[in-house]
Amino acid sequence: MPYRSPADEFRFLMDHVVGFDQVAGTNRFAEATPDMCDAILTEAAKLCDDIIAPLQRPGDLEPARLENGVVRTAPGFGDGFKAIAEGGWIGISADPEYGGMGLPLTLATAVNDMMAGACLSLQLNPLMCQGQIEALEHHASDTIKETYLPKLISGEWTGTMNLTEPQAGSDVGALRSKAEPNGDGSYAISGQKIYISWADNDFTENVCHLVLARLPDGVPGTKGISLFMVPKIIPNEDGSLGERNSLRVVSLEHKMGLHGSPTAVMEYDGARGWLVGPEHGGMAAMFTMMNNARLGVATQGIGVAEAAYQHALAYAMDRKQGKAPGTGAIVEHADVRRMLASMKADTYAARAIAMANAVAIDMANATKDPAWEARAALLTPISKAFGTDVGVEVSATGIQAHGGMGFIEETGAAQYSRDVRVTTIYEGTNGIQAMDLVARKMMDGGDAAFALLDEVEAYAEAHKASAPDLAEPVWQACETLREATEWLVDQEMTDRFAGAVPYLRAFARVLGGYYHLIAALEGDATRKRLATFYIKRILPEHVGLLAHVREGAEDLMALTIDDLVA
Amino acid sequence: MPYRSPADEFRFLMDHVVGFDQVAGTNRFAEATPDMCDAILTEAAKLCDDIIAPLQRPGDLEPARLENGVVRTAPGFGDGFKAIAEGGWIGISADPEYGGMGLPLTLATAVNDMMAGACLSLQLNPLMCQGQIEALEHHASDTIKETYLPKLISGEWTGTMNLTEPQAGSDVGALRSKAEPNGDGSYAISGQKIYISWADNDFTENVCHLVLARLPDGVPGTKGISLFMVPKIIPNEDGSLGERNSLRVVSLEHKMGLHGSPTAVMEYDGARGWLVGPEHGGMAAMFTMMNNARLGVATQGIGVAEAAYQHALAYAMDRKQGKAPGTGAIVEHADVRRMLASMKADTYAARAIAMANAVAIDMANATKDPAWEARAALLTPISKAFGTDVGVEVSATGIQAHGGMGFIEETGAAQYSRDVRVTTIYEGTNGIQAMDLVARKMMDGGDAAFALLDEVEAYAEAHKASAPDLAEPVWQACETLREATEWLVDQEMTDRFAGAVPYLRAFARVLGGYYHLIAALEGDATRKRLATFYIKRILPEHVGLLAHVREGAEDLMALTIDDLVA
Repeated sequence: MPYRSPADEFRFLMDHVVGFDQVAGTNRFAEATPDMCDAILTEAAKLCDDIIAPLQRPGDLEPARLENGVVRTAPGFGDGFKAIAEGGWIGISADPEYGGMGLPLTLATAVNDMMAGACLSLQLNPLMCQGQIEALEHHASDTIKETYLPKLISGEWTGTMNLTEPQAGSDVGALRSKAEPNGDGSYAISGQKIYISWADNDFTENVCHLVLARLPDGVPGTKGISLFMVPKIIPNEDGSLGERNSLRVVSLEHKMGLHGSPTAVMEYDGARGWLVGPEHGGMAAMFTMMNNARLGVATQGIGVAEAAYQHALAYAMDRKQGKAPGTGAIVEHADVRRMLASMKADTYAARAIAMANAVAIDMANATKDPAWEARAALLTPISKAFGTDVGVEVSATGIQAHGGMGFIEETGAAQYSRDVRVTTIYEGTNGIQAMDLVARKMMDGGDAAFALLDEVEAYAEAHKASAPDLAEPVWQACETLREATEWLVDQEMTDRFAGAVPYLRAFARVLGGYYHLIAALEGDATRKRLATFYIKRILPEHVGLLAHVREGAEDLMALTIDDLVA
Repeated sequence: MPYRSPADEFRFLMDHVVGFDQVAGTNRFAEATPDMCDAILTEAAKLCDDIIAPLQRPGDLEPARLENGVVRTAPGFGDGFKAIAEGGWIGISADPEYGGMGLPLTLATAVNDMMAGACLSLQLNPLMCQGQIEALEHHASDTIKETYLPKLISGEWTGTMNLTEPQAGSDVGALRSKAEPNGDGSYAISGQKIYISWADNDFTENVCHLVLARLPDGVPGTKGISLFMVPKIIPNEDGSLGERNSLRVVSLEHKMGLHGSPTAVMEYDGARGWLVGPEHGGMAAMFTMMNNARLGVATQGIGVAEAAYQHALAYAMDRKQGKAPGTGAIVEHADVRRMLASMKADTYAARAIAMANAVAIDMANATKDPAWEARAALLTPISKAFGTDVGVEVSATGIQAHGGMGFIEETGAAQYSRDVRVTTIYEGTNGIQAMDLVARKMMDGGDAAFALLDEVEAYAEAHKASAPDLAEPVWQACETLREATEWLVDQEMTDRFAGAVPYLRAFARVLGGYYHLIAALEGDATRKRLATFYIKRILPEHVGLLAHVREGAEDLMALTIDDLVA
């Protein structure tokens, strides 16, 4: 069964669950009428199903490769990218002044999710472009905006992020790349960057690198870092392409998956670059890019979960085995049903959280209301970590549901699992996301978290009479999370960090319960049955997770390095 | 850091945790003195570390391949296998009458675990041989025993299991392979078998296939299946090799991992075979082979978990990043410490369960006591499913602990994850193991389970005064499991099956708590700290799992196929 983009799922989420009507009600997004959203989802689904999904296997079988310094991309990827670009999908939420559609990020999030399910390694390219577009919109000079944004939005050029160096991964502040003023307003950028996704391709005429480097007077650490636009081909003043810049792809990595996406080591050897944002203000600009990129990576996990689920369901409905009743296919076995139900229920939960996150970002952008900004900031690490964990877990369950066939590459189930594996690592590992949640995102003493928990409890309280079986356990789980949160915000950082990962997951579990509860009350009987599965069987996971959280750091850090080596 | 076999861990488990003294106290295993065990573990560790572990990467990079009908194995695998064979490791627990060492399966389990950590794809070969040796010892005629056992035990020949056919996977009874009497005591075997591990090689002179097929008068289903020995080269009466049999490797699979192990489609075209066990008694013989093979597969998961842990720990101790205190390496970060601690704690738990399982099998073999037989039968699905789940989870966490490097194949972390992935699937998927636990293994009304839970509670009760922080939660978790078990054995099969997987995992969690508690009380301060981590932070997972179990099947099966498709 070929992949089918779940456009209706997004319609349901937007119309009934995540409060998209608030976004559509703002002046900024007044164009996002129900008809417009419907058309966008329909068209995007068509592109994903017909053009992008057929690239999934070729991208794995014929990986991008480096030939005499030129990146040769997987078969069909050039045409696939052009179709994405020509449909306007790269700039769906970009500024109309530069050719974007100016639509809500909520819609872009839905489209990115569908595209990730179709072909993750190709989808990563427009996702990187969107991140760069957003960083430039917020931080670049008008000259840079005018030169680069129209080309990036149209897909004539692509964009990358260059943060990591061999000694500077999660600790970006340790980077050594240098930027020396050339005296003409440009800078000479030198250094090596690693893990550069889509660092080059053979289907666009230029690749624009946003590179973090340190000016001569930059202090050590993150406060001395600046951001530069370093194009592969330097544009002339009239916008035409000029000379080749002093940068090159040194090598491509051999990865566990995502073979269609070239991941490069890049070398900058006095390459010409232009400052984006203020001197030494690189981290702030990078955070703009990373925050929304984190939601983008969440869509990668969720999209792959969707595709892996569809793939496993089709197999389970087709595969005859044993004395299964009914259709005689393995989907009739209780344990297979359990696997599929958990895949579907978790995909919905992760998707609802990501879509609620997108709504919060749109509302923050449209209203500048600090409450929406705080909500958006709070939900971002949860969306990223839980969305990608769900991608990894659902694709693993997808392999399991296939039995022996799951381990055979031709089946395709293994590829989902290999491809999505990186999403829990890049854009900040999920451990980093969890630390962000319990530290930076709770510098407000937990106000943003408590506001969200208030919302969950108020909803559950209001529906206890109509759906006691579901509303009561959601309320109770939320209350347990509240108590753990109250405890957490009073702890030292080490104690918070020790339980950060289980805390984030428990938070996601409770939010999943909330959005399933809404689906049960707003949707049809199918949604109610799925919500019942989640709330009664999956949600109780929070108990063990929060027990872990409340142990703090003491016993954990008492386990010394010597203990670990023993 | 190269892999180091954890021989001391097995010494501790045997001396203090799983009651190996009972095995050594039997007449049958009187030779297994402490000195003998110590020497075996030391020698096996040396072989694994020096000879086998260096084959891990080459096995992945240069997979076994089929050339003109001949399987060419990965570089070095032939020498590696010969070293295993010449050390006598294949027949460690085989009958001395045919050249085996006759030592307890507990020791073989320890050796298999260490070897799996060194190189899983090679270890699978002697593991398959051991399964075949055991099946022949129990079910074959003296003629077959005399012809095959010495060659298999010496490693001159290897052995395979041929169960699966395209339409007959978990449902073995659906197989179509045929056996026609030749009139001379032999049978003509015809049919296609799939997923045949180590179906052929280029380093032994013969490969012996145990093949399930149906005689002309065999009834449909499992009761009409017989087992046959079908050698690649037919031995002459004097034991020398005669003519080539009518069987061939049709193709090798492209797998997610375990590339060093050739997985074949086999075709039998009137190949000559000899009956093993009675006509139509193939399933009983196969179950002998499978039951201990299941414990063998458990060692695969656990061995890989050990190797992945060592690999991640070495990286975390070496990798400098961020403002880590102490050594400045990432192991100082609380979240990395948490990952490593969970890997180590779960590996210990799974290993203790598997070793206790091996002790139960040894005691059952030595004493024929039905209580030990029931204990062995009960623990087998738990060892297999939990041991391999731990292999998958720990190797996944190992990737995560490496950050971006985890996704790069050269690092080696990804290979552990890809290789071990199949272990939750073959020898009966982990879903099948869980169904076995709640159905066949509880046909006694739960007696074997309750006897084990009694043991756990008695131990916890006896140590409440000396270690209340640890003994109390273990007792409590065991009591919760007991209540769930009492509920479970009163349910219909569908209700049991719906929660079988979470039930098995909860059972393993509690057993893990028990063996950690023993370690805390019998071992040093390091073991106590690790036990504290497990009991306080990981054990509480059982609450959510058992909540899932007690929901039964109703809500799950109410979720229709239409619901899943929606």
